[in-house]
Amino acid sequence: MKRGANIGGLIARAADKQGLKLEGGDVVVVTQSIVSKAEGQVIDLDKVKPDEFAKRLAKQLNKDPREIEVILHEAKEIVRLRHVLVARTHHGFVCASAGVDHSNVDHGKVTLLPRDPDASARRIRKKIEHECGIDVAVIITDTQGRAFRMGAIGTAIGISGIKPLMYLRGKRDLYGKKLRSKVIAVADALAAAGVAVIGEAGEGTPVAVIKGAMYKKGKGSVHELIRPREKDLFV
Amino acid sequence: MKRGANIGGLIARAADKQGLKLEGGDVVVVTQSIVSKAEGQVIDLDKVKPDEFAKRLAKQLNKDPREIEVILHEAKEIVRLRHVLVARTHHGFVCASAGVDHSNVDHGKVTLLPRDPDASARRIRKKIEHECGIDVAVIITDTQGRAFRMGAIGTAIGISGIKPLMYLRGKRDLYGKKLRSKVIAVADALAAAGVAVIGEAGEGTPVAVIKGAMYKKGKGSVHELIRPREKDLFV
Repeated sequence: MKRGANIGGLIARAADKQGLKLEGGDVVVVTQSIVSKAEGQVIDLDKVKPDEFAKRLAKQLNKDPREIEVILHEAKEIVRLRHVLVARTHHGFVCASAGVDHSNVDHGKVTLLPRDPDASARRIRKKIEHECGIDVAVIITDTQGRAFRMGAIGTAIGISGIKPLMYLRGKRDLYGKKLRSKVIAVADALAAAGVAVIGEAGEGTPVAVIKGAMYKKGKGSVHELIRPREKDLFV
Repeated sequence: MKRGANIGGLIARAADKQGLKLEGGDVVVVTQSIVSKAEGQVIDLDKVKPDEFAKRLAKQLNKDPREIEVILHEAKEIVRLRHVLVARTHHGFVCASAGVDHSNVDHGKVTLLPRDPDASARRIRKKIEHECGIDVAVIITDTQGRAFRMGAIGTAIGISGIKPLMYLRGKRDLYGKKLRSKVIAVADALAAAGVAVIGEAGEGTPVAVIKGAMYKKGKGSVHELIRPREKDLFV
């Protein structure tokens, strides 16, 4: 993926080539790494000069000090520091290494998360709309670890054309009982589903299309998925 | 769902009725509530006598003291206590209310998580094998909240016939670079995907079938998905 690449257009043409008919309402799941690369969110580690603090941390974490320097730059707050560095990014995401990733990019380089992932998702969506004349939902995902659970799953980091949360307050369950404040993170569930299809290391197809998913169309932001600091019991 | 119900058999027959062909390798996602009910993991709150501690906690949390009494009984450890009670269950799951749930069950009753959810999943899988002659994977899910993120998603609490984690250690990404210790929680991703299809309040169809999913067959346990206490930065 080259800097400046038109991902929305590439998706539209790739779908066409594969005989996959993109339709209105489809959910297009795109992995962070191709978006970051298209947006030039790539750092050449050879050009990074780690400071003393980064060097010290790198020793503790057994990591490349230049990568730590980049991580610290992306972090607004260090949330945990033990065998991994868990940080809150400037977007508000709490994730390992502040989203800095050395997989699926040239050796000696790392990708940063897109600066404004909702805007990235919107651009992809608009391009698909322009090229195919249909309105899809777009979810940009990052594969992130979780507290309490082993392993990582696809997580939404940028969205467009989808309400990320489904509020069940006041709805009734199968027994007609009012459900108390159940809120489903639809965008995260679809992100996990999409990444499960895309598979492990991207495998050459870092995009998934989910058809028939249940979600509400509309203007939404990934920030609705970030638990505010004061409501979070674990940061 | 009646106590003693044969869920595997019900799924096989429901699929048949709906013209859905269950095939070997399909992933059958089943929600916790029907499994708990079939296994008699239901508590009538009228028969619960809360002790003084439960009463005090209930006041603090603005909850039914009898429900708190049940939650404390299911909890091996209280992990957080503020507006919700986050507990580690006797299985090892860290979740709100120790998995005690009052949705999708008769008024005045709550469901507990299955006692041995892997065994529950195995029984369902064996029944489907018996009735349809095919080997599927079964994932029992609970809709759980997350640290850092708003909203809940489907999470695996019991599995059979699937390796829950996919280890990418040593695999190479698209650039031929060795991936460092990436571990994907496939069973959780499929649980989230399944619950996203099942939707909100069960909607009458608390089972989903996922076809064509990428996972490794084999003996696996949901305990592989539980982060050991010493490796967890957030409990």
